[in-house]
Amino acid sequence: MELPRALVAEGLGTLLLLATVVGSGIMAENLAGGNDAVALLGNTLATGAILAVLITMLAPLSGAHFNPAVTIAFLVRREVRVSTAAAYIGVQVAGGLAGAALAHAMFDMDLVQVSTQARTGMGQWLAEAVATFGLVATILATLKARPSALAAMVGLYISAGYWFTASTSFANPAVTIARSFTDTFSGIAPADAPAFIVAQFVGAVLATGLMGWLLGDRRSST
Amino acid sequence: MELPRALVAEGLGTLLLLATVVGSGIMAENLAGGNDAVALLGNTLATGAILAVLITMLAPLSGAHFNPAVTIAFLVRREVRVSTAAAYIGVQVAGGLAGAALAHAMFDMDLVQVSTQARTGMGQWLAEAVATFGLVATILATLKARPSALAAMVGLYISAGYWFTASTSFANPAVTIARSFTDTFSGIAPADAPAFIVAQFVGAVLATGLMGWLLGDRRSST
Amino acid sequence: MELPRALVAEGLGTLLLLATVVGSGIMAENLAGGNDAVALLGNTLATGAILAVLITMLAPLSGAHFNPAVTIAFLVRREVRVSTAAAYIGVQVAGGLAGAALAHAMFDMDLVQVSTQARTGMGQWLAEAVATFGLVATILATLKARPSALAAMVGLYISAGYWFTASTSFANPAVTIARSFTDTFSGIAPADAPAFIVAQFVGAVLATGLMGWLLGDRRSST
Amino acid sequence: MELPRALVAEGLGTLLLLATVVGSGIMAENLAGGNDAVALLGNTLATGAILAVLITMLAPLSGAHFNPAVTIAFLVRREVRVSTAAAYIGVQVAGGLAGAALAHAMFDMDLVQVSTQARTGMGQWLAEAVATFGLVATILATLKARPSALAAMVGLYISAGYWFTASTSFANPAVTIARSFTDTFSGIAPADAPAFIVAQFVGAVLATGLMGWLLGDRRSST
Repeated sequence: MELPRALVAEGLGTLLLLATVVGSGIMAENLAGGNDAVALLGNTLATGAILAVLITMLAPLSGAHFNPAVTIAFLVRREVRVSTAAAYIGVQVAGGLAGAALAHAMFDMDLVQVSTQARTGMGQWLAEAVATFGLVATILATLKARPSALAAMVGLYISAGYWFTASTSFANPAVTIARSFTDTFSGIAPADAPAFIVAQFVGAVLATGLMGWLLGDRRSST
Repeated sequence: MELPRALVAEGLGTLLLLATVVGSGIMAENLAGGNDAVALLGNTLATGAILAVLITMLAPLSGAHFNPAVTIAFLVRREVRVSTAAAYIGVQVAGGLAGAALAHAMFDMDLVQVSTQARTGMGQWLAEAVATFGLVATILATLKARPSALAAMVGLYISAGYWFTASTSFANPAVTIARSFTDTFSGIAPADAPAFIVAQFVGAVLATGLMGWLLGDRRSST
Repeated sequence: MELPRALVAEGLGTLLLLATVVGSGIMAENLAGGNDAVALLGNTLATGAILAVLITMLAPLSGAHFNPAVTIAFLVRREVRVSTAAAYIGVQVAGGLAGAALAHAMFDMDLVQVSTQARTGMGQWLAEAVATFGLVATILATLKARPSALAAMVGLYISAGYWFTASTSFANPAVTIARSFTDTFSGIAPADAPAFIVAQFVGAVLATGLMGWLLGDRRSST
Repeated sequence: MELPRALVAEGLGTLLLLATVVGSGIMAENLAGGNDAVALLGNTLATGAILAVLITMLAPLSGAHFNPAVTIAFLVRREVRVSTAAAYIGVQVAGGLAGAALAHAMFDMDLVQVSTQARTGMGQWLAEAVATFGLVATILATLKARPSALAAMVGLYISAGYWFTASTSFANPAVTIARSFTDTFSGIAPADAPAFIVAQFVGAVLATGLMGWLLGDRRSST
């Protein structure tokens, strides 16, 4: 793996992920006539599908994290260096912001917006910790049990997460930051973002610990 | 396979399965504006997806039963010992109850609830026997025809079952017990649970017998 | 392949296919509150999923035709004998009728019903010929290009067919006969069934001819 | 690969693709009772599914482009000859027109129609460039990372694209031309088609350039 290409892959992947999350939320809300369950079906379908595609495409170049919580999990496992992790997280956040702006541009909206959507409270924070725990557990266990299924499993896991967690599974600090800059279906008020991000890192670290024991080994490299 | 890890895998898997079944039911009902078919689409999507994920992740550790009826089927086939089966069923039930409570916690609801949803009558009982027959037949036949497809096939089978059986395919005694402790979309009144569980074991045993003959062999180990 | 087991597999598979087609139609119509597109989504999801499951499970035993038009296609290609084809078609029709009755039993309805749903006219007949042409072409081409994908491709093809053909893709004479005996969402009036079946066989034979040339070979055995 | 068969495969595939896009749009709009998000779910499900099927079936015969923008991408990469590309594009356009007409025939509508659906403006054009960039990037990266997943990835990518791009991802000049000849859910006014097609070629060429560098190689043959 070569760092410049890996960083472009992480940035491009996170950009397209956010364009999909935000864009499909706008489309879904525009068309759903007020039925939020129908809107969430469209949002889920698009997000799950693009995750499977982006991970399949880009995993050989960067590991296809697209998610600081995942990068931190691999850092805790000593499978990426600190400097690489820092660079990954930087391009993930930048890519995510660009992706939200791209979605706005496609829908002829202001490129930069600030969300007014409150998402807060113990239930939501627990939901984000559970969502990220499950995501990291899925990744670590699938990489051991059947690495070729990783892209499909992440897409399916997040599809389920959109429905079973009270917060609709952001499960990703770069996604959370980017979604605080859209005042549409998928937004989160900036004041509510930090607590989500803390919960996400807690979930990621707990999963890294539990799965490290459960899987009974330590994988190396990235 | 090592027993302590297998039991943790069974417990964790059943916990996440129930968190998904119950949580996605709550989310779907909250959002669907009274259209129960739309709600069931969300509930189905989440349940089918998480089953594929959990089985892929955890099958190498425990076989990924998450279901006493499946464990009993393997016991009848002498592929698990009685003591292992008893321990599996214990953690499945405990994990399921914890999963329902976790869903409630994420949605800021009382952790322990009692369902008031009546699900009874000959049609429902027949449906549960058919649902569990089909599930066990799917597992046994897929393990012979294409073991690598097991996770996908169980996810798809239950996705179909949510729609084609009149009971929406509980097909799992641990799920049935846990769902009697949620007074939400997916609940079942405790008084109606025992008949469901009897029907499920009947379906499982019939499938084990028929498929044993149809597949023309006996598999060993677990 | 051993004939008695193959016939049980064909009968069981067609039974479960029809229980799903008819049962999910009843469930969907009951819940959808008059929105037939939502009902068709549920019906499609269940049918596509169960086809993938049943073909994966039972293909090693019988080839998993579950469809007289498919059996006739293999007969035209001389990959099954006349006597085997006749026996297959017999159990497919019997299994289909039993499956519709099973769906009715699960939903506490009269076991035997007669459909009053008119489905007729040039557009519908063309649609059935196109639907069955596409199904047989999918099967023959996938068996050559990637046999391991057959189950998924048939499930996906029929999922598309439920939406792109004006008739919702019966594409199967055994299904057509069985669906004339249900007065629910998926029914077809018995008087309209024969023209559907003729169109299906026309589509199947055309596909067998065109694909035989396009694929440039003749496969053997079944 | 043999040219006459390849051309029949391209023509047949594009025909069935358009029959599905247009036909499922008609079905969805007929049934959805004015909820366009529900209609788009049906349209998406059918289109994504048939793409996976058609590419699996026909890739060994022609590469399964079904899309002049994809053919141009391979031409830029010198993986097809100019004469082959010209012939491919010809049959793609002809097949697409025939597919739209076939959909109309199945639904008892006038075979040839002219769309009155305006789709124009900077947002829409950006969306088409993004949609086609993403499609070509998906194809080139998947062919390198995991060729056997190509059919699934294209189906999933377009399923996401129907929701995340403001234009619903035509992403295909042959599809755009054909959809200008249907006055139904999926139509586009002929006057708006040329700008879509220009945007599609721009996206395709940009993706070919970026991915050529990112993937660090040049593939040969088709």
